[in-house]
Amino acid sequence: QKAGQLFSGLLAMNVVFLGSAFISSMIFNHVSITLADVWILLSILKVLSLCWIIYYLLGTSRQPHAVLYQDSHAGPIWIRGSVLLFGSFSILLNVFQIGYSAILIQCKSRVEIVFPSIEILFICTQAFFLWHHSKDCIQVQHNFTRCGLMLTIATNLLLWLLAVTNDTIHMEIESQLREVERRFAGKAPFSHPYLCNETTLCTCPNTTICKVFQKGYILLYPFNTEYCLVCCSVLYVVWKNIGRRISHHHVPHIKPKFKLQGVVFGPLLGATAVIIGICVFMMYQIQATGSAPNRQVFVMYYSYYIVLLPLMSVGAVIGTIIHALEKKELDTLKNPTRSLDVILLMGAALGQIGMSYFSIVAIVATDPKDLLNSLILSYSVLLIFQNITQNVFIIDGLHRQPFVAATEARHTGHPGQHTVASELPGEEETATSSKQEHTQMPPGKEEEMKEEQNHEACDQRRVSMLELGQEIRKVSLSYIHSYSHLSWKRRALREISFFLVLCNIILWIMPTFGAHPVFENGLEKSFYGYSTWFAIVNFGLPLGVFYRMHSVGGLLEVYVTA
Amino acid sequence: QKAGQLFSGLLAMNVVFLGSAFISSMIFNHVSITLADVWILLSILKVLSLCWIIYYLLGTSRQPHAVLYQDSHAGPIWIRGSVLLFGSFSILLNVFQIGYSAILIQCKSRVEIVFPSIEILFICTQAFFLWHHSKDCIQVQHNFTRCGLMLTIATNLLLWLLAVTNDTIHMEIESQLREVERRFAGKAPFSHPYLCNETTLCTCPNTTICKVFQKGYILLYPFNTEYCLVCCSVLYVVWKNIGRRISHHHVPHIKPKFKLQGVVFGPLLGATAVIIGICVFMMYQIQATGSAPNRQVFVMYYSYYIVLLPLMSVGAVIGTIIHALEKKELDTLKNPTRSLDVILLMGAALGQIGMSYFSIVAIVATDPKDLLNSLILSYSVLLIFQNITQNVFIIDGLHRQPFVAATEARHTGHPGQHTVASELPGEEETATSSKQEHTQMPPGKEEEMKEEQNHEACDQRRVSMLELGQEIRKVSLSYIHSYSHLSWKRRALREISFFLVLCNIILWIMPTFGAHPVFENGLEKSFYGYSTWFAIVNFGLPLGVFYRMHSVGGLLEVYVTA
Repeated sequence: QKAGQLFSGLLAMNVVFLGSAFISSMIFNHVSITLADVWILLSILKVLSLCWIIYYLLGTSRQPHAVLYQDSHAGPIWIRGSVLLFGSFSILLNVFQIGYSAILIQCKSRVEIVFPSIEILFICTQAFFLWHHSKDCIQVQHNFTRCGLMLTIATNLLLWLLAVTNDTIHMEIESQLREVERRFAGKAPFSHPYLCNETTLCTCPNTTICKVFQKGYILLYPFNTEYCLVCCSVLYVVWKNIGRRISHHHVPHIKPKFKLQGVVFGPLLGATAVIIGICVFMMYQIQATGSAPNRQVFVMYYSYYIVLLPLMSVGAVIGTIIHALEKKELDTLKNPTRSLDVILLMGAALGQIGMSYFSIVAIVATDPKDLLNSLILSYSVLLIFQNITQNVFIIDGLHRQPFVAATEARHTGHPGQHTVASELPGEEETATSSKQEHTQMPPGKEEEMKEEQNHEACDQRRVSMLELGQEIRKVSLSYIHSYSHLSWKRRALREISFFLVLCNIILWIMPTFGAHPVFENGLEKSFYGYSTWFAIVNFGLPLGVFYRMHSVGGLLEVYVTA
Repeated sequence: QKAGQLFSGLLAMNVVFLGSAFISSMIFNHVSITLADVWILLSILKVLSLCWIIYYLLGTSRQPHAVLYQDSHAGPIWIRGSVLLFGSFSILLNVFQIGYSAILIQCKSRVEIVFPSIEILFICTQAFFLWHHSKDCIQVQHNFTRCGLMLTIATNLLLWLLAVTNDTIHMEIESQLREVERRFAGKAPFSHPYLCNETTLCTCPNTTICKVFQKGYILLYPFNTEYCLVCCSVLYVVWKNIGRRISHHHVPHIKPKFKLQGVVFGPLLGATAVIIGICVFMMYQIQATGSAPNRQVFVMYYSYYIVLLPLMSVGAVIGTIIHALEKKELDTLKNPTRSLDVILLMGAALGQIGMSYFSIVAIVATDPKDLLNSLILSYSVLLIFQNITQNVFIIDGLHRQPFVAATEARHTGHPGQHTVASELPGEEETATSSKQEHTQMPPGKEEEMKEEQNHEACDQRRVSMLELGQEIRKVSLSYIHSYSHLSWKRRALREISFFLVLCNIILWIMPTFGAHPVFENGLEKSFYGYSTWFAIVNFGLPLGVFYRMHSVGGLLEVYVTA
């Protein structure tokens, strides 16, 4: 098993490195390697991945005993939902691109229609695959499936890399353009430089449909990058689950459901934050993308963050304290989904935290007493603090046993032996049968037979007794929880996590749709130099956006299991 | 435990980010943040780490029950030896620096004597700590010790980062200087630009001692970077081992020893490779650091690699095949040292592989038919292949049970029960005592008492029986191994790993002491642009050097356990 993982990992690594080298070459040497070359490479990879997915859907998964087990933790509904949502936006994006290219067919090559078509096909098939098979623990053709999955992961990573570098290159061109415009005091007629760069060669005819395609392309672009990353994480979990055998009593018998009842302050506070945030964002966008962004808009933007971030941090700290007060059992079972969640949370936070530290050093070294600078300084410090406290809160919450399981078990009527029996269908039978043999035997023979029987019997008896003890303890705990003083803790946890969900959504929306004050305020840019700060933002910003989105998933999980 | 790890990890992350931001600021904005500021920050960190180490040595480790267990895998002799070796070179380096500053005291600040003194103190104390305590599994003051260790790791990482960026900045200045020199067709009197940059302000008096200090500084510089990384990896293992309890029968009772007997071809071939390599290296250094490096020297350099790398790859592939043929049991016990080794091998190889892919794309996009270019192309492809095959070979070898244990067990006289008894001192006792109780009991009472006793007894009996069976199987296997056809496999493994050790040593020496053809051949530099290629090399080269050093350690382990 290890060998298969190693080889498929090496395959993915080589593909990713080759692709990264291609993309970097395209960025730094436009002449030798063009965007078309990169697209050809990516299309080959997409077609290969597509072939494997189709083979899996029609061949591997229909083999007998191919999928004996399902990992109940993998692919929760909101992950699969976001795959569908982002996938459909990405398809729309490609449709717009095809339409745009079709209008300007006279000055564009036909290839610019072919590539998006392959992309649409790839997105559709992959979304279908992930919707139906994200929980599979595949038991046949291990190594071939591993390689196929790793190839698909590598393709998605490269698509993300291309989208991110392209996106930030736009940002760079855009900002340079604006400077030029500012100098000449002209208007800003183009809002999307990638397209406008082309319009110097072939202008978009002044029809509504062409403008719609342009605007839609700009608006939908961020969803594509998120789609690639989400697919990567789901595919990774499937890859981890290959060949895994899940014993039956690990499967939780009741799924916690998403219920809104009982929470008031969290949604209210969160909705207020979202509404104010949208207002701030729109004012920022109107002012900052205009020809002359002034300091006031930055002051407003940072003030909003400085009010919101401490609230979020305090919420997360209170949540962590409540987690510590509540003496729930920790869930220590193997769970690739959760391990990945934790790694992604910590890894994605690094982008934001790194950027903040760079800002802090830049401000402290220049002039921390200026109003705007002190605002940025406190914003950066608070952001680090917020990221860390929120991570601790989410990771803590993910490792707790879901509460619902205990309360629901109480409602089933016969909480004790009955629950155990239904939980352990296979093992219980063997345990009772060996017990029966045991009592039928004459006491003289027992000495000889005991050796072999005990080996199986006593283990299982111990397991079922432990399980019974735990079950009784759980049920009594749940009784205490529901009817006494502990109830406020659950409610507080739900309020806090709901509030944090809404806050993270607004903090996700703002950078996704184009508010990049860290680039536009010009402070760090002048301190580190244009290209260095650009590289730092290029690394940190996409990770920060992904962090917010991923936090929302983690917080929803905490909300449901609280 | 998880919480403690999380918090100390977060502490280290914040320190590393703050330090990185400082160092980057120094690089990109010399005016606001100077090297002195970075040194002040690092000195504070060093003093804090020093305080913790001294507290650990005098306080924590002397508490009762502080160190109950020792991890036999952690801190093998060659790791601790290299800590001492690199540590003493680093001390020498600092002594040279103090001497150099003392000679030029009239134009240098006193601080340049204070900082190296703190550094010497830090290196000495840390080396002492790692030599004596690298195997500890600390059982008291978990969280404080974790934070102390993480602080020390972060300090070492930052020292490495500073050394690497400083080192490569030297390279950059050096290469720019050489170009200037070439243009003016002058001589190249300065070989170390960092010092020569200062000599523009205050010239080194023309005494021998000053020249010795200069030359020694240049020569010893690479050892300092290696020292920091080795310390980090050892400290990480200690951190992982905090609070770990090792059961006694996991401790291997015989340590494999390093013996040279029985290998001939490996050392011979390896020594040949080393001698030729040194000749090539010296010719390269004389030619390439001269005023006009010509193509011939690059052709020679790359040809050497193109001959050597396939040999190494073939060796590693044969070794992997032999590993597969030899049906040895895999060692699946928990072992933080080995997990770290595997991660470091894979991670450090990424640097080299990434650089190679960038080279490949650059060459294919420009002119792959040129002689030098085709040489570089095959060099890059072979390097990727060699890295991957060697990694697979080492990882495979590290996961096998040492062979020596089985053969030595045969020599102890009573291979069967006796070995088990000596292996399981604690468990064997309880198993026999419960057996005695068992036989003394009347058969009527047995039914009631069985429940509780069986729980402990049958597990242990099964363990000991399994152990006995394995032991017998091991001994008989070892017998077959030693006296029949299997012996050639062990010998081949030893020959291969010895050959690879020597090859990796020469491949480590060449880049460490200044052969950077990837930078000096100018091909990729002109393709990607100066600063981009500089950043790639800056990331890849130090990792590549560390990879070679770490491979030597892994291969020695494979040699000893083969």
